[in-house]
Amino acid sequence: MIIGIDLGGTNLKLALTDRNFRIKARRMISTAGFLKKEDLIEGIVISVNRIIDDNGLRKNQILGVGIGLPGPVDSKSGFVHFFPNIPGWKNVKLKTLLQRKLRLPVCIDNDANLMALAEHAIGAARGMQNALCVTLGTGVGAGLVCAGKLYRGSTYAAGEIGHVPLNEKGPKCNCGGIACLEAYIGNKRIAKAAKAAFRKDISLEELSARAKKGDAKAIRIWQMVGRYLGLALSGAVNLLNLDAIVIGGGVANAGSSLLNEARAVVKKRAMSVQARHVKIVKARLGNDGGMLGAAILARSYSGRG
Amino acid sequence: MIIGIDLGGTNLKLALTDRNFRIKARRMISTAGFLKKEDLIEGIVISVNRIIDDNGLRKNQILGVGIGLPGPVDSKSGFVHFFPNIPGWKNVKLKTLLQRKLRLPVCIDNDANLMALAEHAIGAARGMQNALCVTLGTGVGAGLVCAGKLYRGSTYAAGEIGHVPLNEKGPKCNCGGIACLEAYIGNKRIAKAAKAAFRKDISLEELSARAKKGDAKAIRIWQMVGRYLGLALSGAVNLLNLDAIVIGGGVANAGSSLLNEARAVVKKRAMSVQARHVKIVKARLGNDGGMLGAAILARSYSGRG
Repeated sequence: MIIGIDLGGTNLKLALTDRNFRIKARRMISTAGFLKKEDLIEGIVISVNRIIDDNGLRKNQILGVGIGLPGPVDSKSGFVHFFPNIPGWKNVKLKTLLQRKLRLPVCIDNDANLMALAEHAIGAARGMQNALCVTLGTGVGAGLVCAGKLYRGSTYAAGEIGHVPLNEKGPKCNCGGIACLEAYIGNKRIAKAAKAAFRKDISLEELSARAKKGDAKAIRIWQMVGRYLGLALSGAVNLLNLDAIVIGGGVANAGSSLLNEARAVVKKRAMSVQARHVKIVKARLGNDGGMLGAAILARSYSGRG
Repeated sequence: MIIGIDLGGTNLKLALTDRNFRIKARRMISTAGFLKKEDLIEGIVISVNRIIDDNGLRKNQILGVGIGLPGPVDSKSGFVHFFPNIPGWKNVKLKTLLQRKLRLPVCIDNDANLMALAEHAIGAARGMQNALCVTLGTGVGAGLVCAGKLYRGSTYAAGEIGHVPLNEKGPKCNCGGIACLEAYIGNKRIAKAAKAAFRKDISLEELSARAKKGDAKAIRIWQMVGRYLGLALSGAVNLLNLDAIVIGGGVANAGSSLLNEARAVVKKRAMSVQARHVKIVKARLGNDGGMLGAAILARSYSGRG
């Protein structure tokens, strides 16, 4: 059995899977209460031990533990640089630390990379050579599979499609740049557009529900999201000549308006050979992608892949 | 010995190299006179045979012939789809055709890919894992090295940095897209800007010479080119987390204004981790990059690499 973990700004989610990545048990705890890094690490240790115990397993029956993390991670050395949305983490040797506490093999990676790993191995990009898996959320990120392998870049920071500039001038972005994709379609921007349209605060779930019911104002907002996304994807498609682009993250559930608009923009703006070839599809593994990718990473690192 | 060929819209250039890619002899003929595909193929055959004879070699001393071509090429099957700037070529089995006529192993690839292969193997990106090699010319293209290997994309069409959109709206591009990098800094656009600035036709060589002498108007034009190039590179740097970006092609000789401006834009607009890591440098192999890449490809295909 394998343990795959997805650590987010809101929740810590664990899955116990078999060697074929079928989920046999789940655990979830809120990370909101864990203000200190040490508490969060302790929370991971307790949760791992409990999911093993609760399922009547012994540690030597666990191949390894994989963890997806919300920030730049040196997956080779197991080093966490920092998390943009969880304070207190800076230069943490998380892999070594957890291995000592858990007495299990541990491997870590960025959450967008693990989502890509999972969609490529068992999801929407299965069997494809070259795929970009985009996660739409508070941040907009991606994991990139090139020639059948996860491509992490020279300093483990590849995949930042959210910070591709869409215009010479435009809104300031959290990253320090200008007119980045994320500055147009990060969740906060979508919420802002929704508030302007409906003259009240409206959750993105509600905005999706309204679009699915045919509300023209809600549909227009998701089309706007799809338009900006499609523009960034057009550049990626021309540069990388991909088989597939997989769209995941919360707002990927917005319905067809977003995806159809993104497809239309890519068809119009990308070069015909590349645009005809690429498939733009919704993620198949939904919220489980991160945990499953973590389990897949753990199995590949175990040498018993 | 190996023969590396660079076929362009203006010239057919051949190099005879040793196994370490040192150029031992050269030939060049104009392609302007070859209006028909058959004549151009015959021109290649005659040139190859002559460079062998002139250097007192026999065919069995030639490891192979590599050819860089100005358009999308299926390098595996040796199939030419078409050339944007040379009419009359559509779906040509060039590799098979030339092998029969030459009785030598032949391999073909896109010219930008071969420039990248050469700069990575023996040029400015030597020893690097991830590099983008951009060629600035009538068209703006690139070859991409990922994880130490040439990345060709799913249908051999990767590397089209010239067709990354820089704005939502902007000038129409030859590719059918809008506001692509090439629509801002393709050679014709630079010539147009030069004509507007100097109120007469001025060659790009002359524009470079003027910039090097300190002419403010000429410098401003090259800075404009660098600014647009830097914007496209910022997106590529965030997406691919590269070790190096190598700038080649005719206008790469414009002097420091272009490169410095591109570096400044990447520093300002790309994310700090990626921007700090990437080196933006001039191509080292100059106009020989294509021929040398062709020779490198030929050696790797020969199985005696």
